Amino acid sequence: MKTEIISIGSELTSGQNLDTNAQWLSRRLSSVGFDVGFHTTVGDNRAENLAVFQTALERAEVILVTGGLGPTADDLTREVLADLAGVELVLDPNSLSHLQEMFRKRNRPMPERNRVQAYFPSGSTPIPNAMGTAPGIWMERPRPVSPAPRQATAIIVCLPGVPAEMFPMFNDWVLPRLLARGGGGKATVHHTLRCFGAGESHIEEKLGDMIRRGRYPEVGITASEGTISLRVTATAETPELARQQIEPDTAFIRAKLGDLIFGENDDELYTVVAQLLADRRLTLATAESCTGGLVGHLLTEVAGISSHYLGGVVSYSNEAKRDLLGVPADLLATHGAVSEQVAAAMAEGCRRRFGSDLALAITGIAGPGGGTPQKPVGLVHVALAHTEGIRAGRYDWAAGRSSIKIRAAKTALNLLRLHLLQWPR
Amino acid sequence: MKTEIISIGSELTSGQNLDTNAQWLSRRLSSVGFDVGFHTTVGDNRAENLAVFQTALERAEVILVTGGLGPTADDLTREVLADLAGVELVLDPNSLSHLQEMFRKRNRPMPERNRVQAYFPSGSTPIPNAMGTAPGIWMERPRPVSPAPRQATAIIVCLPGVPAEMFPMFNDWVLPRLLARGGGGKATVHHTLRCFGAGESHIEEKLGDMIRRGRYPEVGITASEGTISLRVTATAETPELARQQIEPDTAFIRAKLGDLIFGENDDELYTVVAQLLADRRLTLATAESCTGGLVGHLLTEVAGISSHYLGGVVSYSNEAKRDLLGVPADLLATHGAVSEQVAAAMAEGCRRRFGSDLALAITGIAGPGGGTPQKPVGLVHVALAHTEGIRAGRYDWAAGRSSIKIRAAKTALNLLRLHLLQWPR
Repeated sequence: MKTEIISIGSELTSGQNLDTNAQWLSRRLSSVGFDVGFHTTVGDNRAENLAVFQTALERAEVILVTGGLGPTADDLTREVLADLAGVELVLDPNSLSHLQEMFRKRNRPMPERNRVQAYFPSGSTPIPNAMGTAPGIWMERPRPVSPAPRQATAIIVCLPGVPAEMFPMFNDWVLPRLLARGGGGKATVHHTLRCFGAGESHIEEKLGDMIRRGRYPEVGITASEGTISLRVTATAETPELARQQIEPDTAFIRAKLGDLIFGENDDELYTVVAQLLADRRLTLATAESCTGGLVGHLLTEVAGISSHYLGGVVSYSNEAKRDLLGVPADLLATHGAVSEQVAAAMAEGCRRRFGSDLALAITGIAGPGGGTPQKPVGLVHVALAHTEGIRAGRYDWAAGRSSIKIRAAKTALNLLRLHLLQWPR
Repeated sequence: MKTEIISIGSELTSGQNLDTNAQWLSRRLSSVGFDVGFHTTVGDNRAENLAVFQTALERAEVILVTGGLGPTADDLTREVLADLAGVELVLDPNSLSHLQEMFRKRNRPMPERNRVQAYFPSGSTPIPNAMGTAPGIWMERPRPVSPAPRQATAIIVCLPGVPAEMFPMFNDWVLPRLLARGGGGKATVHHTLRCFGAGESHIEEKLGDMIRRGRYPEVGITASEGTISLRVTATAETPELARQQIEPDTAFIRAKLGDLIFGENDDELYTVVAQLLADRRLTLATAESCTGGLVGHLLTEVAGISSHYLGGVVSYSNEAKRDLLGVPADLLATHGAVSEQVAAAMAEGCRRRFGSDLALAITGIAGPGGGTPQKPVGLVHVALAHTEGIRAGRYDWAAGRSSIKIRAAKTALNLLRLHLLQWPR
């Protein structure tokens, strides 16, 4: 089914915010065979919204709208839908109860203006929102007259713009109903292999002419802060057939790249490391200097990590390295805080301190100040203390502060990953 | 001038790539007074492209297009423009010389298919591209008949989708010509006040009917993980005049919201806290449980923070709370790790341990597991140890794991901010 995604908000048309919802919805929809033909973004202007909805009705069978469902005066989607259908907004008692309940749970009075969120265009269906106050709206509208075999009715789905609310509403409520209504056509299947530890051009060379435009299945390559993603795409009558077409390519890539590949699809280094720790029943602690807590933050994004991650020390000052991690003062004086020796001592001290099986240490110069000719901005030492010794690495990136932090954190996690892969389960 | 931005490419409509060009162009254009009303994204389909261009001609006076100018068969923008104008594509000898020169410089033969990049719709103007092979196109088209005072002619500007090529072409060639044509004429100025510590509807109620559609200057409100942004927008003959129109509104908002406002425009809580620490020459350490290092990570995004942030402990386990922060074991046993008492003991222990002026502690249940009826997922205790005692707070959010971590980190930073505001400089 031809699909259009509409994102509403003047913060998007003015460039204040970046629209990531349209991409997320496009991925979800095209993976199950919907043909996403258009994205449209429009500001908080009632007449322009109405015109955009009318254009979408002409060219799309499924219209997915995000934004404009909040309680404030510039949230117009309810009114625009009512205008489009030529109907009134009517109160939905269930939605009102849900709203009141949400505020009661937080022990707060419901502001009067939130009431508008319980009003819906007559004839539409409310979509429950477990995570917030804005319910969604499902509405069907006849399309402007045109020759068969066009579908005569368009499905309009409006969801809140907040991703944490929109994602589960789409996955759990909207998508099953769209699929039940005939859903997609041919299935496009993507499979992504995620790599770390080599540059984009190095990986491209290893794969020969696989990443050639016009090849089928298509293999796309993208890079983000040291992570290289290889995405294989095929389109077939069924998802199963498309997967069969993809399989030889992913097998070839795996054979060529080996342990440069850390995971698939949405895997991140920290999710993979968390799983490896769990499989091997090992515990970890961290000693972070230039990354300032980023490795700990990433690992604790994973639910259940508390069984394997004991904690860490952010040893931003030399005193913290000495007092909390037991790095000898003379080592700091002789080699400097950013050195292989200090990285190793941080890792060993951290492992001792937390009584963990493994400890990961990072020390480096994130910049923009603090560099010298011998130790430039971007120099990072990483060390892993394990039961049988130390693994260490020295890296050097020409990049900005945030980017150096992210690469250092990923590099440390990758060092740990490579160690765990060799460790018996 | 009413402006529409069109992004072309099936890699965008399928969600494979994220469109960041539209945001970049929107920011540049609206800062000099263009009224960006619409973004449209369309795949590599000739009929759909043509329809999108026709719709844009109806509603916009300036149409900025990116993508579809490459040498391959799915690059359709040249053909679509010719269709739109009902003209032929003709060879531009200068563009062909430039193309041949680009390849000669790289010591490569020019592939035959690149020749198409030197063809332009008759009557259009090539836009030189110093960084790549795809020249841009400037074309003017009459708009569909409609009543005055609509501008009768639309300016269509097509640029390559590669940001490194598109940015300089827009800045150096396109923008001066758009401004010379009357351009933005009026300057639009935005000023954003950023708030933390109250909900969106609470803030809106405090501001009365200021956030009313059609009001001038316009005041928009958006929320993201507890941070509320109020954006005041005015349009006037000069940026200075627009700023004068904004000023009374920002003064009114400041008076109403007081210290709920933590900063302006791109300020974040962590950048503001870093500045407050620097102004007051105070040092900080952190003791993080459920946030796992996120507060340390955020603070260390700020260059130069090492003079004020000494480091921290990620005390994810009870043992770490006891051994590294000196939280008494009986306190943990009696009140549990997530309690006001333990948060206070963590902060005090951390301050002692690091010898810092201030220490911030966070303990909570990020979920999805680990909640009980008495201590549900989302319960977070925050404490600040300072020279004269403890400040603490208890919070409770119905949200996902990442979101709870972010809100807890921001809430801790805000507690510190409010303390620092009362501290003499």
